[in-house]
Amino acid sequence: MTTFKVHVRVVPRAGLLDPQGQAVEHALTALGFAEASGVRVGKAIELAVKADSKAAAEARARAMCDKLLANPVTEDYLVEVEG
Amino acid sequence: MTTFKVHVRVVPRAGLLDPQGQAVEHALTALGFAEASGVRVGKAIELAVKADSKAAAEARARAMCDKLLANPVTEDYLVEVEG
Repeated sequence: MTTFKVHVRVVPRAGLLDPQGQAVEHALTALGFAEASGVRVGKAIELAVKADSKAAAEARARAMCDKLLANPVTEDYLVEVEG
Repeated sequence: MTTFKVHVRVVPRAGLLDPQGQAVEHALTALGFAEASGVRVGKAIELAVKADSKAAAEARARAMCDKLLANPVTEDYLVEVEG
């Protein structure tokens, strides 16, 4: 058993309204960052997963996303396993 | 001017209490994911940045983090520029 560091990124699906992202984009423009566009705000989750292999850790992390971390109707997720 | 896709990850600083991360960890344990530990929950921000170079896009994204996206007292951020 090895402990793998896993990074999960959960973002609103393309095409779905993202009011938080729009608010951040307006604030950036007001602060002088006119070069920023298409802002989407989601969740970044970091965790340690004990598993026999990197592939097993990724599979378990994906299962966690499907069951709890992401809403499959409105969100997409991306799982990265370190090491 | 090129448009670069930028991924920003903002997470609570190590050592600081993260109640949302603890809640997620308890929920994962309750759902049978006992192999998960050290859960930290932060923000994942995606945006497009118009800049002359990849380095310039990263510098502007870091300025956005310092001014708006992250709280320098309680959060750390990581900027990745695609392409």
